[in-house]
Amino acid sequence: MIARTPTPPYYAVIFTSLRTEVEEGYKDTATLMVELAQAQPGYLGVEPARDGVGITVSYWESLEAIRNWKQQADHLIAQQLGREKWYEQYKTRICLVERDYGFDKE
Amino acid sequence: MIARTPTPPYYAVIFTSLRTEVEEGYKDTATLMVELAQAQPGYLGVEPARDGVGITVSYWESLEAIRNWKQQADHLIAQQLGREKWYEQYKTRICLVERDYGFDKE
Repeated sequence: MIARTPTPPYYAVIFTSLRTEVEEGYKDTATLMVELAQAQPGYLGVEPARDGVGITVSYWESLEAIRNWKQQADHLIAQQLGREKWYEQYKTRICLVERDYGFDKE
Repeated sequence: MIARTPTPPYYAVIFTSLRTEVEEGYKDTATLMVELAQAQPGYLGVEPARDGVGITVSYWESLEAIRNWKQQADHLIAQQLGREKWYEQYKTRICLVERDYGFDKE
């Protein structure tokens, strides 16, 4: 699904990653993290995709909402496990969405 | 590959899409568009991923570079064909990358 975000400005976190071959715990944790993110104040939406490289974009009302999510207790544990087990490499980019436009066939 | 981008600030264009079932011409055009984007002034990198939803993030030095790419002649044709044939729905978000950080196991 394309996330239904409000009129800009709002924030995006682009998380790009390369996985290791370790599958143990990955999917369950990824699913749980999306559920927890959705429950955070200021959460606006998420878009995940992977083929080789993985890209997860999450959308937020403010930098404060992003900071709070980064420090959320279960998320901190998942970040630690991610570095130890699941990710070969990743990059996180914090972005201000200044403008958007779209197209819908219907 | 994770794009090797410079120290922020720079710009990101998040293009999120849902495809139709029309395959004709799609892959060739997508490949050509990446090649053309790479040749544009101010291009910094691209990260594509698709499963169900497609996310392509391209990185740029400035808003001017993004505007020039949007107006590039072959790209204009591809945008038109995209709306007619390949995309059910899409959203383009123009973002200022304010901060980034990463992790590399090696």
